[in-house]
Amino acid sequence: MYIDHPASYTDYYELTMAQGYFLSGMHQKRASFDYFFRKVPFDGGYVVYAGLKELIETIKHLRFSKEEMEYLVKEGFTDKFITYLKTFEFRGNIWSAKEGEIVFPNEPVLRVEGNLLETQLIETLLLNVLNFQSLIATKAARIKYAAGENSTVLDFGLRRAQGLAGIHATRAAMIGGFDGTSNVYSAQRFSIPAGGTMAHSWIQSFGDELTAFRTYCEHYPDSAHLLVDTYDTLGSGIPNAITVAKELREKGHELKGIRLDSGDLAYFSRQSRKMLDDAGFKNVKIAASNQLDERVIASLKTQKAPIDTFGVGTRLVTGDNSPALDGVYKLNSVNDEPTLKISENIEKITLPGKKKIYRYLNADGTFYGDAVLLDHETLLERMHHPTFPAKKSNLNGRTYEELLGQVIINGKEMYDLPEVDKIVEYKKERFAKLHPEYKRFDNPHIYKVGISTRLMETRDNLLNTLKP
Amino acid sequence: MYIDHPASYTDYYELTMAQGYFLSGMHQKRASFDYFFRKVPFDGGYVVYAGLKELIETIKHLRFSKEEMEYLVKEGFTDKFITYLKTFEFRGNIWSAKEGEIVFPNEPVLRVEGNLLETQLIETLLLNVLNFQSLIATKAARIKYAAGENSTVLDFGLRRAQGLAGIHATRAAMIGGFDGTSNVYSAQRFSIPAGGTMAHSWIQSFGDELTAFRTYCEHYPDSAHLLVDTYDTLGSGIPNAITVAKELREKGHELKGIRLDSGDLAYFSRQSRKMLDDAGFKNVKIAASNQLDERVIASLKTQKAPIDTFGVGTRLVTGDNSPALDGVYKLNSVNDEPTLKISENIEKITLPGKKKIYRYLNADGTFYGDAVLLDHETLLERMHHPTFPAKKSNLNGRTYEELLGQVIINGKEMYDLPEVDKIVEYKKERFAKLHPEYKRFDNPHIYKVGISTRLMETRDNLLNTLKP
Repeated sequence: MYIDHPASYTDYYELTMAQGYFLSGMHQKRASFDYFFRKVPFDGGYVVYAGLKELIETIKHLRFSKEEMEYLVKEGFTDKFITYLKTFEFRGNIWSAKEGEIVFPNEPVLRVEGNLLETQLIETLLLNVLNFQSLIATKAARIKYAAGENSTVLDFGLRRAQGLAGIHATRAAMIGGFDGTSNVYSAQRFSIPAGGTMAHSWIQSFGDELTAFRTYCEHYPDSAHLLVDTYDTLGSGIPNAITVAKELREKGHELKGIRLDSGDLAYFSRQSRKMLDDAGFKNVKIAASNQLDERVIASLKTQKAPIDTFGVGTRLVTGDNSPALDGVYKLNSVNDEPTLKISENIEKITLPGKKKIYRYLNADGTFYGDAVLLDHETLLERMHHPTFPAKKSNLNGRTYEELLGQVIINGKEMYDLPEVDKIVEYKKERFAKLHPEYKRFDNPHIYKVGISTRLMETRDNLLNTLKP
Repeated sequence: MYIDHPASYTDYYELTMAQGYFLSGMHQKRASFDYFFRKVPFDGGYVVYAGLKELIETIKHLRFSKEEMEYLVKEGFTDKFITYLKTFEFRGNIWSAKEGEIVFPNEPVLRVEGNLLETQLIETLLLNVLNFQSLIATKAARIKYAAGENSTVLDFGLRRAQGLAGIHATRAAMIGGFDGTSNVYSAQRFSIPAGGTMAHSWIQSFGDELTAFRTYCEHYPDSAHLLVDTYDTLGSGIPNAITVAKELREKGHELKGIRLDSGDLAYFSRQSRKMLDDAGFKNVKIAASNQLDERVIASLKTQKAPIDTFGVGTRLVTGDNSPALDGVYKLNSVNDEPTLKISENIEKITLPGKKKIYRYLNADGTFYGDAVLLDHETLLERMHHPTFPAKKSNLNGRTYEELLGQVIINGKEMYDLPEVDKIVEYKKERFAKLHPEYKRFDNPHIYKVGISTRLMETRDNLLNTLKP
């Protein structure tokens, strides 16, 4: 499970509202909420949706423990409400895009229906899980895209992760397309390949670099990546690595690789490659680390730096300059009546009613654009820009896929959600259907997300008639 | 404890190195490591050191579980090594600055001594805990400093926290100076005041705003903060809040406050204040939220926006534009022989030997500067700039405090480390001794951290004599 006490992994106001609904008899009203985000992080063109499996498994097991109820008693919550919480469990319904799906701003990627109390109570948990894992899966997808399918990208981020965020950063990195991790905990928990060889301290703790390399290779003759920059990369690191590689070969082993962790990686990788090749070690791989991200890797690729493996840490696991996805959870209807939040900021006006998403395709199966429509609608002829409705797209004759499927029915999981390895495959398959223009790092093409005419009319009528 | 399986909350290479040391008989060598960071986050002038108590308690209980050892067997680790791990525990020594201390770049805030294997093995865990909590405690200190002692700052960040980072972001925010949180989980775990009232969904779920406000106040007549921006802040939100405030007063209660969550907060707070005051509700507090940080709050203060309480979320709990503290853990000696890492980047050259920190004071007790010196040194006459040694500071006649104290002796905690409430007090007391010039957001004064002549000579001799 995601956390030991999920019922209290929440904002206090979820509990005051829950009690308020309960005491005023409102809690049995039917409610529907949407999860969506407004802005693509990293100034990018897409988001890789992640975190669903863990969210669903946690919601399924969400109960109030004895300690949590004792805390609420001390905080002044009423006996009547506490008694209600004793048998509380989530008994509602959830529809969602698949984990690993490519998704876009202002479309309801997940929808929750149930009574007002239960649908409200899961808000904070839901946002906490989905926002972060989607953020990191997206960052990972960008980094893997820069590195290309023929390079290996490894998560080295645990030491710089935001505390326990390290656990799920690694899971999300794999979904986004990473090939492995240094994080042993998450490797065990999520069945992810893990690896790693040596730090500078290994080299320093021996009297000299050659002995350090030699000793390591005695114990790991087939898997060593020798770290060559502790003293002088080209003056000692690579020459010592070559000496050890020769000794290994005499014993029937091959040195696996070397790692660069400082200096100009383009320069040092090229020089190292040449020295290794000249010594007859064309198969020794070059790994590089040190403040890497998608832009640095793209630049190294442009410079044709002969790096086989990129170890990415801080800028992967924290999301670097975009450390949060701005996902929100907004009420769209109560007792099947659409509701709206107006707000002083126009971009915070919500889309009312229960909705679904149709993804329209191009003739070759690639993604054309997404339409958000009311749940009971079917065929669409066109969709409108959400805030500039005169801008329309004709959808006649295009095939589409429905993006949301039910994952929880009356509080029960409908089927086992896929494990990380299957999610990775799905992400890869879907990502291939997104045109490269959307994947660009600078000024990516903006993916079309429109709304149906009926949805637009519903919103505009509500805006005109709503009295505070 | 920080995490359920701390032994595997680590990078894979810590384990390959540990086995390598063990199999080559190196593991009983004595080693000493320093924890320090190189750069102050947020372009700021100081760091608030946090995370120590949790780190120490976790190291104390670090053992290899059956599942973890089974995993290592599957990964090909040797039986001999696994047998060693069965009785592994950390039996070394740790010195540290106090949690809540104000600290600076390039000084060893924490030092670990023990055998090479045990001191190496805790690296990733140590960095993961200290880097994140120090980052957020620092951000929180900046935000509280902007808001001032007479304003209340509350952590609203759980939904945007990086997954489970939410747990410790809240703890660290309190250490930095926050007054409370919305995070129920951390409030329980760390005995922190929590609170919260309503979201927009509360208002929307009733037919109208007035009924929503009224119903809330029926159940919470003394603690309601009414959220006034769901439809029209000044047109309906504030007038409805005033209506309810009058009704409450007739029943002998007073409305606690209102909250603004969108629009121009300076404008809306001023207008709201006036309307509330004119209606006779001068004691109704105004809370504000929506993408706040220390700079926005400082600007609101400059504009004399009458806001009593600031709810800060994303930009607090993620560290915003500086989402990681770059703390590292570097070997300083083996069997009491100082060691050095040279690196291709000059700023990554380490300080050799076991070291301590003296904090020199001004006559009024405020902080003058810190000297890093070798452990056996005592009186200093001067200290040198670490990379530009001709720049010296005279220390003659100044009083000083020693910053590091022993917290773990032979694997045992020496005393119970303080709880959050005591750490908060310590931080406040120490922060008061730091001159305002270091607290400025733009181009803060750079705090002096120098090295002793002996330390400088030790480093320079090593640099000259070290053979790879």
